[in-house]
Amino acid sequence: MRFFSDNAAAVCPQVLEALVEANRVDTAYDGDQWSERLDGAFSDLFGKPVRALWVATGTAANCLGLATLCPPQGAILCHEMAHIEVDEAGAPGFFTHGAKLSLLPGYGAKVTTETVEQACARVRNDVHQVQPAALSITNATEYGLSYRPEEVAALSDVAKRHGLGFHLDGARFANAVAFTGADPADLTWRAGVDVMSFGFVKNGGMNAEALIFFDPDKAGEVPRLRKRAGHLQSKGRYLAAQILAMLEDDLWLANARAANAAATALADAAGPERLVYPVEANELFVRMTAAEAAAIQAQGFDFYDWGPDEVRLVTSWDQDMAAVEQLAAAIRAL
Amino acid sequence: MRFFSDNAAAVCPQVLEALVEANRVDTAYDGDQWSERLDGAFSDLFGKPVRALWVATGTAANCLGLATLCPPQGAILCHEMAHIEVDEAGAPGFFTHGAKLSLLPGYGAKVTTETVEQACARVRNDVHQVQPAALSITNATEYGLSYRPEEVAALSDVAKRHGLGFHLDGARFANAVAFTGADPADLTWRAGVDVMSFGFVKNGGMNAEALIFFDPDKAGEVPRLRKRAGHLQSKGRYLAAQILAMLEDDLWLANARAANAAATALADAAGPERLVYPVEANELFVRMTAAEAAAIQAQGFDFYDWGPDEVRLVTSWDQDMAAVEQLAAAIRAL
Amino acid sequence: MRFFSDNAAAVCPQVLEALVEANRVDTAYDGDQWSERLDGAFSDLFGKPVRALWVATGTAANCLGLATLCPPQGAILCHEMAHIEVDEAGAPGFFTHGAKLSLLPGYGAKVTTETVEQACARVRNDVHQVQPAALSITNATEYGLSYRPEEVAALSDVAKRHGLGFHLDGARFANAVAFTGADPADLTWRAGVDVMSFGFVKNGGMNAEALIFFDPDKAGEVPRLRKRAGHLQSKGRYLAAQILAMLEDDLWLANARAANAAATALADAAGPERLVYPVEANELFVRMTAAEAAAIQAQGFDFYDWGPDEVRLVTSWDQDMAAVEQLAAAIRAL
Amino acid sequence: MRFFSDNAAAVCPQVLEALVEANRVDTAYDGDQWSERLDGAFSDLFGKPVRALWVATGTAANCLGLATLCPPQGAILCHEMAHIEVDEAGAPGFFTHGAKLSLLPGYGAKVTTETVEQACARVRNDVHQVQPAALSITNATEYGLSYRPEEVAALSDVAKRHGLGFHLDGARFANAVAFTGADPADLTWRAGVDVMSFGFVKNGGMNAEALIFFDPDKAGEVPRLRKRAGHLQSKGRYLAAQILAMLEDDLWLANARAANAAATALADAAGPERLVYPVEANELFVRMTAAEAAAIQAQGFDFYDWGPDEVRLVTSWDQDMAAVEQLAAAIRAL
Repeated sequence: MRFFSDNAAAVCPQVLEALVEANRVDTAYDGDQWSERLDGAFSDLFGKPVRALWVATGTAANCLGLATLCPPQGAILCHEMAHIEVDEAGAPGFFTHGAKLSLLPGYGAKVTTETVEQACARVRNDVHQVQPAALSITNATEYGLSYRPEEVAALSDVAKRHGLGFHLDGARFANAVAFTGADPADLTWRAGVDVMSFGFVKNGGMNAEALIFFDPDKAGEVPRLRKRAGHLQSKGRYLAAQILAMLEDDLWLANARAANAAATALADAAGPERLVYPVEANELFVRMTAAEAAAIQAQGFDFYDWGPDEVRLVTSWDQDMAAVEQLAAAIRAL
Repeated sequence: MRFFSDNAAAVCPQVLEALVEANRVDTAYDGDQWSERLDGAFSDLFGKPVRALWVATGTAANCLGLATLCPPQGAILCHEMAHIEVDEAGAPGFFTHGAKLSLLPGYGAKVTTETVEQACARVRNDVHQVQPAALSITNATEYGLSYRPEEVAALSDVAKRHGLGFHLDGARFANAVAFTGADPADLTWRAGVDVMSFGFVKNGGMNAEALIFFDPDKAGEVPRLRKRAGHLQSKGRYLAAQILAMLEDDLWLANARAANAAATALADAAGPERLVYPVEANELFVRMTAAEAAAIQAQGFDFYDWGPDEVRLVTSWDQDMAAVEQLAAAIRAL
Repeated sequence: MRFFSDNAAAVCPQVLEALVEANRVDTAYDGDQWSERLDGAFSDLFGKPVRALWVATGTAANCLGLATLCPPQGAILCHEMAHIEVDEAGAPGFFTHGAKLSLLPGYGAKVTTETVEQACARVRNDVHQVQPAALSITNATEYGLSYRPEEVAALSDVAKRHGLGFHLDGARFANAVAFTGADPADLTWRAGVDVMSFGFVKNGGMNAEALIFFDPDKAGEVPRLRKRAGHLQSKGRYLAAQILAMLEDDLWLANARAANAAATALADAAGPERLVYPVEANELFVRMTAAEAAAIQAQGFDFYDWGPDEVRLVTSWDQDMAAVEQLAAAIRAL
Repeated sequence: MRFFSDNAAAVCPQVLEALVEANRVDTAYDGDQWSERLDGAFSDLFGKPVRALWVATGTAANCLGLATLCPPQGAILCHEMAHIEVDEAGAPGFFTHGAKLSLLPGYGAKVTTETVEQACARVRNDVHQVQPAALSITNATEYGLSYRPEEVAALSDVAKRHGLGFHLDGARFANAVAFTGADPADLTWRAGVDVMSFGFVKNGGMNAEALIFFDPDKAGEVPRLRKRAGHLQSKGRYLAAQILAMLEDDLWLANARAANAAATALADAAGPERLVYPVEANELFVRMTAAEAAAIQAQGFDFYDWGPDEVRLVTSWDQDMAAVEQLAAAIRAL
């Protein structure tokens, strides 16, 4: 029973159907009717005009977005556990032509106004030092915490004061919305976010993420940069169709709620003593001896050890609730 | 009726079915059973052990391949009409970190031993001049001509003599194999090709191309570079599944034959007087006045004007033969 | 007797003296009194406020300048014999992070309004094609021709119409000014040039060139880019001092006149039949059989063969006029 | 009286004389007799055949060297206070095309075997994480500490075990040799260093540093990369001449000893209570209240405040010993 990654989950039936549907109509390269509906669909979702582009991966979405905020000679502030730092193979350096990631410490992979202020204060404004140009946060974070709207807004205030663009890695944005119950607008542009990647793959998509510019004029050369990075798909309608299917009737939110609910059930079973972080999305980090972990894995549950005496559990949109109950029982029985 | 691009064609039913099938099994990131079958499937096709990776676009496949052959300070020789020069938005410069494309002239977008020799002869071997490091050809070419095995081998001889790596843009490789009837091995590694992109998207795929290294040891850092470029899909099994479906029972070849047959039918209708190039794949460049072109377009045929008094017709794997016959008749009637 | 390169000439006594003088005062990194005088000195020379920075080489000056005009995804139009294309080892690709050089043909390494128009006309304005962003010319050209003010202005008109920034490689700008007798302003900003490298090394300097922005606000991040490229010298006062010495009493112009005069004397000796191009600076390309060339070289004259039956002669600021007369006589005696 | 930077010191008389001398002979671009003597001169100094190239700045020397050790997708381990991280404006990212600096903590800007081991242990060997490719240390460090030969050798052992190339930033290598009394070979290649920058500018040079490859075959494409970065000077003989003058009769070592002696005299005056670090080169970091610092600055001594209640003093090769005595007395009088 899979609890090791939401990337391993299946693709939603609605997404598959959308692919079949999109296959019925002739159209072409990036000017197709599905791709052209993205701007409108996300503008509706966010309650303001936005520019939205599909890309196949979160790494590409993040790094294309960051490339519009940070010049080659600049720095991007992010948490030291941020996906862009830890798990993207140096992609930010590639897409920005060499910009630096300046790493911030902090609980649960969360960036705070203090750590941003400190990082900015350390830099002399001269030609010898790399100047910060952007701030990037991940919501929900890499450790399953969710920023609230007021936290995002406070970070934005600091960012704007220092002239930083503000990027949001939203690989699990749906889970943060589901957990906080916040309006997507309040977690993004109303809180000062300039650019975001809006994740679908971990949430039931196949291979389509959205890159969203809250000021459409700031998208600038991104369509060109997407092509230059080999990310303009000639049959892009199949990416747009996936995203539109996920937006239809808020399927993205329903899926995230399902994943979060599974995580919450497991969190209740584990109890606060065992939880390394509060569970605010679809990931749990649970204190467990190696023997305990092995005992549970032996019962057919797949998950990763996460350092000594700690395991990581990730729940998915399609998580079988019976399996969740079984795992919850196994944890309780420890 | 669509004759403007093979990118606008639908996805093969077998490919769609493969996606549905792949959705039935849990698995993960790049280590899944479909992706792991690619090496074997292409090794069978080419009759030697190769290393094969999926990528979503031909541009990414070409440029990741070129990046293994050419350092940032080197040059890639290619035809001045090559897709990498004309239609990839500078992606080769991005993926190679600034390498130069040195452009060769020639009929029908074909590179010849003479133009390669001349380009190499022009370069002084000193630190002031960019040194050629790779040769890239496209088969079938951007003007629908197919290299024969002996032509490829002759180019390889020149390339090797000058220390150049040899890259093949195979966006329409299937059409070249279908036209020449050659063994894929004879058009590639037996003729000295080091790396190729093997196209599926124009031939019935959705968004999967293969990047193939004929010496598996030369793939080197490419899996890492693929990730760094945002091209490692977390649900990569859906790309692998497409490719495997296309290879099954040589569907790729059947599709290419269908497209070529449609092109040949139109070529017969146009006659040698009107054809700018012999038709050796699925593209035709036809001499036609603007009035003639408009007259045919008015009958419901969609295609591009291609400079003054010339049009381009592209046929696809799913070309409706009735429409082909109608268009052939319309051309004959001019 | 040296006629092979103006780079081989000695450093002017006044430049050496300036170095000794600069050694008498303590000061620091890039904020020294010499460096700070550059803006003013060039503003005086050009009759308008400019921003001027020292750099050690013409390649660095050219490429830092181009990097402010052309984004990584853009193209720089230049002559196919331009120094930036032929002799800078791909530096433009390095400094611009992968921009393309689009090559223009033409007599004597001269760019014309026609070739610029044609190059622009060839490019579709879509995301697939690299868009031209800058035009670069060299004055005097690589073949020793000098653009007149009205030629530069006409090129600027075309450039502006197509939204291109306008760069001037002025490695031998002094020779062009000396030949044309034009006001430096008329050859540059009044004729629409945005950025130039102003060469001193070939003209009696040691290792200092100037990078000049005619709109000081457009210099932007260049001081930072200079540092990032390792071109900010900690004892930069010694570069500024060289340049100031060359500007003092128009030494730069006197030196260029001397070099041009030597070239003219040789041109007169060669006669129009033997000259491949009119001599409008300090370079001559002279038709001469291999036997003739060898005979003259045997008399102690050092110069390069330049293709079959052609030689290149370059004169310098310190050219010994007796040697010039001897060489002129030897040429006449052929 | 200057105690703020060794970059502000004058150029040695012997260096100036060498420039005058080099001006007496005609020669050319990078193939001149001075440049060609560098390999031999450094081979003599290090007691083994090496490849040595001049470059104008330490930043360029460091980054060209690092570019031979670390691919674009790799990481360079260095101290978080390393010059390449803090004071080179992102140049390592530029020259390596986007490689990452992975920062190590530690006393006095020193790298230890423990911090290197920890950094390597943190990285999973998969395609998602940037793999360490090189280790860079600075000797003497940015805080004026000198590594001993056995420390360098121990670091090299760790580096080699993890497959890392080993780079030495030797901006103040002379000071480290002067302090430790070690054979330059024992501080470098015998202790496993692959590439180093050997600084002269802070030690009496004008604008020439040496980039040294202890395995000449590993210099590889560096001459070409130097040109591509705009660092090949056409009159490079004036850089080579500076370096040769500094090597003559070990002038580099005499100069470093003079600077170190001045620092030691000040350290004795300050006493261990006030010294933040032991003084092992030509830099002192001294605890001092703002009022104390101001009082001393008011007596005509120029130096930088270095955080709260701390100042930095840097001594130079040409430090006037009378001024040193005066400053020592002023410090004692606090």
